[in-house]
Amino acid sequence: MTLGRGDGQNGRERSLWAWGWADRFPDHAARTGLGQLARAFLPAAEPALRDLPPDEPAVAAPAVAIAAALAPFATQAPRERAMRTRGRAFPDLVAGFANDYAGAPDVVARPRDAAEVARVLAACEARGWACVPFGGGTSVVGGVDAGLARGDRPAVVILDLGALAGVRELDDTSRLARIGAGTLGPALEDELEARGFTLRHYPQSFEFSTLGGWLATRAGGHYATGPTRIDELAHAVSLVTPRGELATHRHPGSGAGPEAQRLVIGSEGALGVITEAWMRVVPRPRWRASASVAFADFHAGVAAARALAQSGLLPSNARLLDADEARLHRVRFDGRSVLLVGFESADHPLDAWLARGLELARDHGGEVVSSKGDDRRDDRAAGDAGRWKQAFFDAPYLQSGLLSVGILSDTFETACSWTQFPELHARVTAAVRRALDEACGGGLVACRFTHVYPDGPAPYYTFVGALRPGGELAQWRAIKAAASDALASAGGTITHHHAVGRTHRPWYDRERPPLFAGALRAVKRELDPRGICNPGVLVDA
Amino acid sequence: MTLGRGDGQNGRERSLWAWGWADRFPDHAARTGLGQLARAFLPAAEPALRDLPPDEPAVAAPAVAIAAALAPFATQAPRERAMRTRGRAFPDLVAGFANDYAGAPDVVARPRDAAEVARVLAACEARGWACVPFGGGTSVVGGVDAGLARGDRPAVVILDLGALAGVRELDDTSRLARIGAGTLGPALEDELEARGFTLRHYPQSFEFSTLGGWLATRAGGHYATGPTRIDELAHAVSLVTPRGELATHRHPGSGAGPEAQRLVIGSEGALGVITEAWMRVVPRPRWRASASVAFADFHAGVAAARALAQSGLLPSNARLLDADEARLHRVRFDGRSVLLVGFESADHPLDAWLARGLELARDHGGEVVSSKGDDRRDDRAAGDAGRWKQAFFDAPYLQSGLLSVGILSDTFETACSWTQFPELHARVTAAVRRALDEACGGGLVACRFTHVYPDGPAPYYTFVGALRPGGELAQWRAIKAAASDALASAGGTITHHHAVGRTHRPWYDRERPPLFAGALRAVKRELDPRGICNPGVLVDA
Repeated sequence: MTLGRGDGQNGRERSLWAWGWADRFPDHAARTGLGQLARAFLPAAEPALRDLPPDEPAVAAPAVAIAAALAPFATQAPRERAMRTRGRAFPDLVAGFANDYAGAPDVVARPRDAAEVARVLAACEARGWACVPFGGGTSVVGGVDAGLARGDRPAVVILDLGALAGVRELDDTSRLARIGAGTLGPALEDELEARGFTLRHYPQSFEFSTLGGWLATRAGGHYATGPTRIDELAHAVSLVTPRGELATHRHPGSGAGPEAQRLVIGSEGALGVITEAWMRVVPRPRWRASASVAFADFHAGVAAARALAQSGLLPSNARLLDADEARLHRVRFDGRSVLLVGFESADHPLDAWLARGLELARDHGGEVVSSKGDDRRDDRAAGDAGRWKQAFFDAPYLQSGLLSVGILSDTFETACSWTQFPELHARVTAAVRRALDEACGGGLVACRFTHVYPDGPAPYYTFVGALRPGGELAQWRAIKAAASDALASAGGTITHHHAVGRTHRPWYDRERPPLFAGALRAVKRELDPRGICNPGVLVDA
Repeated sequence: MTLGRGDGQNGRERSLWAWGWADRFPDHAARTGLGQLARAFLPAAEPALRDLPPDEPAVAAPAVAIAAALAPFATQAPRERAMRTRGRAFPDLVAGFANDYAGAPDVVARPRDAAEVARVLAACEARGWACVPFGGGTSVVGGVDAGLARGDRPAVVILDLGALAGVRELDDTSRLARIGAGTLGPALEDELEARGFTLRHYPQSFEFSTLGGWLATRAGGHYATGPTRIDELAHAVSLVTPRGELATHRHPGSGAGPEAQRLVIGSEGALGVITEAWMRVVPRPRWRASASVAFADFHAGVAAARALAQSGLLPSNARLLDADEARLHRVRFDGRSVLLVGFESADHPLDAWLARGLELARDHGGEVVSSKGDDRRDDRAAGDAGRWKQAFFDAPYLQSGLLSVGILSDTFETACSWTQFPELHARVTAAVRRALDEACGGGLVACRFTHVYPDGPAPYYTFVGALRPGGELAQWRAIKAAASDALASAGGTITHHHAVGRTHRPWYDRERPPLFAGALRAVKRELDPRGICNPGVLVDA
């Protein structure tokens, strides 16, 4: 059989190795422009157009044949296997750029219902094959890596959830939708929009990632404050494990024992496969109010962001960009930090909300550089916020493009208390700058807040430096280690919303209380006794 | 040694068997009044003053001596043991009223720090003694029951957390407080208030329950909407288990694996002892706006409550009382349901919020019977809301008093989707009325919403009937089973905020996905391999 989706949607092709659509990858002229842009940020760098990998992946023959039970919905076509070899972490891009598919899976299975998911797990368990759930394949932390999942097992099967897609049921009274785990962001929103609702969950991977992936990795979402994490938008989830199906009880809130759902959410495929979920949806917003506020001093912006986060006004947007981040994202070029503030509601006008929000920002030294009162007309953000939104979804493309012109770039994020932030920020930026100096002969590190909580922000860092072809993995590892060590020593969590995967595993192992590691291992033994579910992720069998 | 707290606070005595302070128990005249009141609600009942239990509990000699390691902080004084034999569930009141202390613990230990908590667990583990953590002893679901915890073990130790009390650290930038698990509600609020903050968590047991108990049982709190459950107010928790201490990582949000804290919260003493937590605190509100809205039709009130819950206005109060509940709590007597709406903020005036909230209530047929705009003066609620608040904290006293005049009363709660609610409500009230008819020759069942979520309400039911002295447990069991079966069959959770304990265990076992039960058992084996922690609760070893 052939599968279809991995190779394209509506006839459009996904890039074999880079982020997103193949036709969005910059052409020769655009790559030349990228090189010029990079030089503006990195005066010492000498960007150069590198040869792109061939479109024919070098995939070895599979080690095993397709198990008979999986034949109706599985393939071993080389391109299908290559497309699902890994995610889109920096090392993944490097490997793809080098046309390295040594770790390609042996089989790609694309079950059409939960029973077929169970059949895949049973077949893998019987043979000791590793099984890696695959949503959109956009992990930036090595959460999807067929080669590493294989270890010393005889084979690895990618369980592609693409066929478990669609909004299956909608309860508009309770504002709940039952949605297949393999549903991609755009399809999910299109189907909900047709019925007047939205999940309003827009991770940066939105176009290429799935509901199941968001749940498995505890994705961060659209709202900068209030309930925003996918954990908080989930009403009930279904997980198929090698021992059967675990469907959590449906309720808006319960005091009956530890919350089962919270064990499933964030399990990264290590306990089983999320097949569907009941999600809390909302009507599309009718009112919007937004503003951007400039701060000469980044830490004044931090104080304003904190005031907003602690105000109870619950802005949907409260994203602070430092001067470099504002420049990188083409929002502002005047060396000032900017706080993007936005409110939205399907229920009421927001004048009072925005007025108080801006009052708080001004109290902390901010200058309101643009402001847009209740706008009932359309969903498109304008001005700084609009430029930000466009740059936000373009950024992952940029990373792939930069790699191809000899520039190394990546991002990482954390969360810490407001009290910890100044010291954490100082340590992290110093450590990353030092690492960039050593590894790349200099570079840039920029910061923004993606989410702000009453007890602390979620700072998100971007770093850019010159790449040494052939040495890029060592460069990246040195910078990543410096950043992660600094986060850990300053008390930040190793990830706010990129998940653990394999990249963060050493720091996660240190951050996680040892007894909780023991508890997770015990659960893993219970649900996945042969340790076939995404081996190497979260906890060892 | 003597312990101190169980016997009194500031010289005031806790009742040996009834709810709360001994001096708040109604005297002869008040009990006569209670009987008259009961007759107004239950025309067929014949209340009569029953003999009160003696003040000297009948406690047998302990089965074991105090382990030497515990001697500095443990006692076997009969009254101390009697005071901590059980909680305040209806069967507990019946047993206490009958002066039955056959299940009294053998030892009461009152460790002064986490190391001494570990010492208690070690001593119990070495000897196979059961260990029951004891916060305020207010469980209404049999979560604290020394007799049942003992089973066939040689002894049972009550681990009283009263000495692990107080606000230990306050971070006013991040609005976080590190608080001992044994801190009682009033002391916790007093200490925070002195520093300008509040946890704003007021379960009905507030005066006699502790932070650790709230966390262990996933208590519901003050706010009717938004983050209100104790789960959501916790930033990090520490659990001492027989295998050591599990202190969760401090962060405002993280995507690093399943959330460890959520395994601890709701563990009801079955995995270890919560010793302290970092809690999210807030400044005391400066602005308040409130109103009460009457509805001739309960289900119109339901629709209004739903509109409020889904509006994004996040009222702190949105409590709907049906006509009987309004009457029982002396809020209204005109046969109408009432929706109490309130907003509060430490940051901004609330005119816009209240105006829109009332508009929604009117849109659903409500009549605004009183309304109070921005009130910056004091913390005391007035009018319907004030009467409600007073009656709310008095209710548990009322239950003990009614028992002493031959009236059976109790409450239960659930949560379900808005879509499920009408059918659930019809089934539950019919089942409870039928059970009251059969067991008590008639009675009353009333409903209110304690919390409302975008996806559903948390309905809370009160039932009252005539008690047959000597047969009251059988009566109660019949009604409780009818109510619980109806909840389960209609899709409600067996508890929204009273926890599982032993009362709800059979229904919890059915509601909980079997694979999650297996996971919990695996965790229990890992953290409490000898099964000494609160045996019989949540999961069997």
